[in-house]
Amino acid sequence: MTSVRRIGVLTGGGDAPGLNAVIRAIVRACKVEHGVSVMGISDGFIGLVEMKARELGLADVSGLLVRGGTILGTSNRGNPFRYAYRRPDGAEELVDASATAKKNFDKLGLDCLIVIGGDGSLSIAERFWREFGIPVVGVPKTIDNDLSATEYTFGFATALEVATSALDRLHTTAESHHRVMLLEVMGRDSGWIALHAGLAGGGDVVLIPEIPFKFEALLAKFRARERRGRPFSLVVVAEGAAPVGGAQVFAGEDAVTGWKRLGGISYQIAREIETMGGYEVRATVLGHIQRGGIPVPTDRILATRCGVEATRLAVTGHFGNMVALRSDEIVSVPLAEAIGHLKRVDPDCQLVRAARSIGVVFGDEEPGAVDRSEG
Amino acid sequence: MTSVRRIGVLTGGGDAPGLNAVIRAIVRACKVEHGVSVMGISDGFIGLVEMKARELGLADVSGLLVRGGTILGTSNRGNPFRYAYRRPDGAEELVDASATAKKNFDKLGLDCLIVIGGDGSLSIAERFWREFGIPVVGVPKTIDNDLSATEYTFGFATALEVATSALDRLHTTAESHHRVMLLEVMGRDSGWIALHAGLAGGGDVVLIPEIPFKFEALLAKFRARERRGRPFSLVVVAEGAAPVGGAQVFAGEDAVTGWKRLGGISYQIAREIETMGGYEVRATVLGHIQRGGIPVPTDRILATRCGVEATRLAVTGHFGNMVALRSDEIVSVPLAEAIGHLKRVDPDCQLVRAARSIGVVFGDEEPGAVDRSEG
Amino acid sequence: MTSVRRIGVLTGGGDAPGLNAVIRAIVRACKVEHGVSVMGISDGFIGLVEMKARELGLADVSGLLVRGGTILGTSNRGNPFRYAYRRPDGAEELVDASATAKKNFDKLGLDCLIVIGGDGSLSIAERFWREFGIPVVGVPKTIDNDLSATEYTFGFATALEVATSALDRLHTTAESHHRVMLLEVMGRDSGWIALHAGLAGGGDVVLIPEIPFKFEALLAKFRARERRGRPFSLVVVAEGAAPVGGAQVFAGEDAVTGWKRLGGISYQIAREIETMGGYEVRATVLGHIQRGGIPVPTDRILATRCGVEATRLAVTGHFGNMVALRSDEIVSVPLAEAIGHLKRVDPDCQLVRAARSIGVVFGDEEPGAVDRSEG
Amino acid sequence: MTSVRRIGVLTGGGDAPGLNAVIRAIVRACKVEHGVSVMGISDGFIGLVEMKARELGLADVSGLLVRGGTILGTSNRGNPFRYAYRRPDGAEELVDASATAKKNFDKLGLDCLIVIGGDGSLSIAERFWREFGIPVVGVPKTIDNDLSATEYTFGFATALEVATSALDRLHTTAESHHRVMLLEVMGRDSGWIALHAGLAGGGDVVLIPEIPFKFEALLAKFRARERRGRPFSLVVVAEGAAPVGGAQVFAGEDAVTGWKRLGGISYQIAREIETMGGYEVRATVLGHIQRGGIPVPTDRILATRCGVEATRLAVTGHFGNMVALRSDEIVSVPLAEAIGHLKRVDPDCQLVRAARSIGVVFGDEEPGAVDRSEG
Repeated sequence: MTSVRRIGVLTGGGDAPGLNAVIRAIVRACKVEHGVSVMGISDGFIGLVEMKARELGLADVSGLLVRGGTILGTSNRGNPFRYAYRRPDGAEELVDASATAKKNFDKLGLDCLIVIGGDGSLSIAERFWREFGIPVVGVPKTIDNDLSATEYTFGFATALEVATSALDRLHTTAESHHRVMLLEVMGRDSGWIALHAGLAGGGDVVLIPEIPFKFEALLAKFRARERRGRPFSLVVVAEGAAPVGGAQVFAGEDAVTGWKRLGGISYQIAREIETMGGYEVRATVLGHIQRGGIPVPTDRILATRCGVEATRLAVTGHFGNMVALRSDEIVSVPLAEAIGHLKRVDPDCQLVRAARSIGVVFGDEEPGAVDRSEG
Repeated sequence: MTSVRRIGVLTGGGDAPGLNAVIRAIVRACKVEHGVSVMGISDGFIGLVEMKARELGLADVSGLLVRGGTILGTSNRGNPFRYAYRRPDGAEELVDASATAKKNFDKLGLDCLIVIGGDGSLSIAERFWREFGIPVVGVPKTIDNDLSATEYTFGFATALEVATSALDRLHTTAESHHRVMLLEVMGRDSGWIALHAGLAGGGDVVLIPEIPFKFEALLAKFRARERRGRPFSLVVVAEGAAPVGGAQVFAGEDAVTGWKRLGGISYQIAREIETMGGYEVRATVLGHIQRGGIPVPTDRILATRCGVEATRLAVTGHFGNMVALRSDEIVSVPLAEAIGHLKRVDPDCQLVRAARSIGVVFGDEEPGAVDRSEG
Repeated sequence: MTSVRRIGVLTGGGDAPGLNAVIRAIVRACKVEHGVSVMGISDGFIGLVEMKARELGLADVSGLLVRGGTILGTSNRGNPFRYAYRRPDGAEELVDASATAKKNFDKLGLDCLIVIGGDGSLSIAERFWREFGIPVVGVPKTIDNDLSATEYTFGFATALEVATSALDRLHTTAESHHRVMLLEVMGRDSGWIALHAGLAGGGDVVLIPEIPFKFEALLAKFRARERRGRPFSLVVVAEGAAPVGGAQVFAGEDAVTGWKRLGGISYQIAREIETMGGYEVRATVLGHIQRGGIPVPTDRILATRCGVEATRLAVTGHFGNMVALRSDEIVSVPLAEAIGHLKRVDPDCQLVRAARSIGVVFGDEEPGAVDRSEG
Repeated sequence: MTSVRRIGVLTGGGDAPGLNAVIRAIVRACKVEHGVSVMGISDGFIGLVEMKARELGLADVSGLLVRGGTILGTSNRGNPFRYAYRRPDGAEELVDASATAKKNFDKLGLDCLIVIGGDGSLSIAERFWREFGIPVVGVPKTIDNDLSATEYTFGFATALEVATSALDRLHTTAESHHRVMLLEVMGRDSGWIALHAGLAGGGDVVLIPEIPFKFEALLAKFRARERRGRPFSLVVVAEGAAPVGGAQVFAGEDAVTGWKRLGGISYQIAREIETMGGYEVRATVLGHIQRGGIPVPTDRILATRCGVEATRLAVTGHFGNMVALRSDEIVSVPLAEAIGHLKRVDPDCQLVRAARSIGVVFGDEEPGAVDRSEG
């Protein structure tokens, strides 16, 4: 029914729980249903340039459903259009290696390439399709859930589970010590993890990039809680949160060592709260534990469905598309339409309004209104 | 803006993780946003008949987000139209106590009643609205996720987490002992938990009420796996699964003692597999641990959103409706349309097809086809 | 320093979380520290009779720390002294295959055999050592923790975690529905899991084989709790629990089907409580999910320490011994002394007294005393 | 049998999972077994100075078994011998308020004070007993498990669970991205959490205060793993780890903001590894999530046993002692002997040797030896 005989698959960008479940679903669907062979390409697009690939069979994907990361390896620096080539003299230079990638695609005898990756990897995939006619199918992966074409992406629910579990743990310490506890979660450009974790973990304040905050609103919330006999508060901070007027002031660099660590805005916010409000404050930067480990069941299912549908698109020749989740169905969306559209939190969306309705403060409220709200 | 001053809330039917989170959201939304008071009614509709109610404030709902069950109590036998009245002589008789319920609703000074419950409780709510004009708003609760008006209900993801975690544990034992392991999960009339858990937990066979099965197809699957060097299999069984031609043969009654236990069909299936196929088989009935305990984060969020929206419907006078989840938005649906429509698994739906595509067997396959599928 | 060049390792009896961690530790200690090669023998002693073995290197044990079960496979029927031989005519007969096992031990070029197993497997190991002079070292494995020579065995803490987590979930359902909920856990001959889980999960009643119970004491406890406004109770039942005077009345056989299921005594107890006390009762048999899956951290550590010490005993020629945990140190104990001594719960031990002290009822109390205790 | 009629209880120092379980056990043992009343004193010794106390009954401790933190509140600055008194002019001065504490002890009608706390709180308790004759009983609490008088303290196993779970999650990311991942855990003066978590979570390198490390040994380990085809490594770092020759170079202060955050040595180590070895490195500081939240089952049991035994010591007049765990029994130890003895990791203890035996590097090895070890 199809002339597709061999499919390549690669994973690009930062890892996310569920990547391996997608790979497993692709291999199983290829073998069990379609009778198609699969080549796993290593370390993202770099593997295509450097011709690192291996055949994948059922035995290779056994046990992958519960395994975090990606057995194919990945890379954050995998753009073949700007490939970091190491010259014989040891120096690196950026070259366009897309033609090599195309040549290797043909050498491997591939009829389609499934790219599992974020906006960056999918843009490369789209360019390959548009400029070279390489038949591609995309599977969106963003742990931040900030791709507009799909309701949810796999990995997000697992990150949410980790962040919420951390909040649950901080809760009792905050209460016992009468402290303000901050938890900094992922989200440089969008606040989805912070917003969801704040709702799931009972955060009193949620700070996200989309809603610049004022410290006065935070302090008003802490005071209102104190008056109710709750002299402690939980604050969920997205990495990219910033106060009104200020740019994101904290670069995430550790000034003593010069080492570039993940996050850190919460340290500065902590100091301000301590100074301005006289509170005992503690801050935790959750970091990389949000993106690894065993996927939660819903992520395993979503990843599996994405893998199966991407395979179906591939073997039926629906190239240039990616899979997406809408109304609990996996649908197909042209890559050209899907890429480049970041889904940010609308400050007036239903979820934010629901959070405000139960008293969650985002920092853009009038302090006086916050004071009254818990009266 | 509204003349609603006092809202009553009750929980009916079997418990589900997230009930308390709904109650918390209702109380917080009432207090923080709407300035409305809340009466918690005990033990479902029985509490309305027996006038057991208490005012709920912010302090009463503190800590509820992570707590399973319902602080209001619930009852499986709470129909006021067929109330089990205990006569002075000690005998019980079923009487229509709906007028008493209506009278108590007025006595309590309620302007609206929010009913959190399954199809049974919501049908009662709808009848109260239609026959007595009692202003009601519904929040659907079904751990089986089998209500057609909404994509998902809170509690389902937690039940899925428990079932999947059990499968993960059985997996290694099955593998080490070369056994067929059965896990029986909830689902008398619909197989959603079994289907989702089967996908999330790597089940090889999934048996659900909607797809009658043949033992031959199961045995073919076990043999196919053996030939691939996998001499063990995981079978997920919904309580209501039944073989082709047979009614649900196993009544769930324990014949030695006469005690009516939950489930048990998996015991019978286990014996058949053992007898027919010569396999070493073990069966586990997961039972009540699927419906209690700390809700997973997504259930906490869904429950919170439902509570907030139900409150908004109540204070804005949109009675006779219930909340529902569609495309990641909470919408409102007339109760009259929502009740009585069981959402069963369509054997040809995308999710079942995805499962088949990766080799999951439902028992309606031709044994020969199964044999070949993993060749 | 040692003439030991090659060590064999096998796992016998039912699986337990941590088996793989022991295997990993043995292989790593052999390779990293001792420069010794390791042969993994499949499916317990059967593999020695049937000459199923393979060399194990570092790559083979990668990732095993978190994996339940045993990569070597195991068997509950693996006694080489009574080996189930299948004759050419298809019939089975039990033969003494110990000489074959000894011969294969030599053929494989083994200098020592590390046996990871329960009392049965260790008894076979001891007999091999005593009768054939096969140099053996033992690692005790009993998920029930009922071996007297050691304080704790790996796997027990994981089983406890599973049982406690189930109790936590049942708790909220019991409370919401005003029910008596029973949880049946492993423990045919000893009640360690039930006792520990009862303490960890807030059980109100704990029924264990070592303390025959009277229903009157149970009912008195339920009544006492009702009087305190707690009209629900949690009962933890060990598989082998039995009422006073009665033998273990329930054979674990399902009378309808004749299929021999695990456990079931809780069904009978449930019926009695329902009948005698008029309570709404539910029972859950936890079954096999107690012995599989990812080991908890303390089990991973204990398993690792046991593997390392067993390897040290092997390469230093301390044969005929097994490792044991005492006062947080791994020590060595002669197999001849260790086997055959079941560690049962002493009804007057500190742990039982602690449980009684906080109000846990074991069923041997005078009902009147129970009634008063919570007054 | 005893003249003790009323017992006071307080919790001091940083919180630890299991504090509430101790309080619950004390109240239950007092009520159920001993018929003694209990006063809960708020916020550590401060509550004794400021006379903040309330009667505790069975209802107050319901549900506490699974709850992190302490319902009594605690304080890190609670020394009555150096009490921070706020003068009418608003300034603070440190005064000796021990006489006030003694007077309040009498006013409250207490016959004994149970102090649940770390070395600091127990030292104060001992001084009260020695200097004022206040009858005290101690329950040791140290999440770092560094008290020499007892084998384990409650809370430690939960912290270990959190740290191990984080390592499990980092593992797959390290593998997928070919990175060196660092996890910084608690342990300023002792490395118990790092050592146990390293063993449980498969750490390749463990850095603890007791064993100064050399970067060369770390790099040798990373290289050895690369040669085996494992181009990634996990490093567990205790807060107080330090390189050879250097004092603990990193003060934990954030230089940009001046805010004193928890930990941070791992950031500096990360930079060194990156610079010296050319690896892609990431570091996560786990922080406060290690000391909050639901206790694991073994901690719940240990806490309960400690509470019951402390109560027994109190009502039988064995003052001046604290409870301790030895060989799985709770014993009694004079406070005077127990305090002031920090239990540090002996670099030659069995646990460290076991870790080295399976290839864990502590940084004091000769780089050449490390290189060879995985050959």
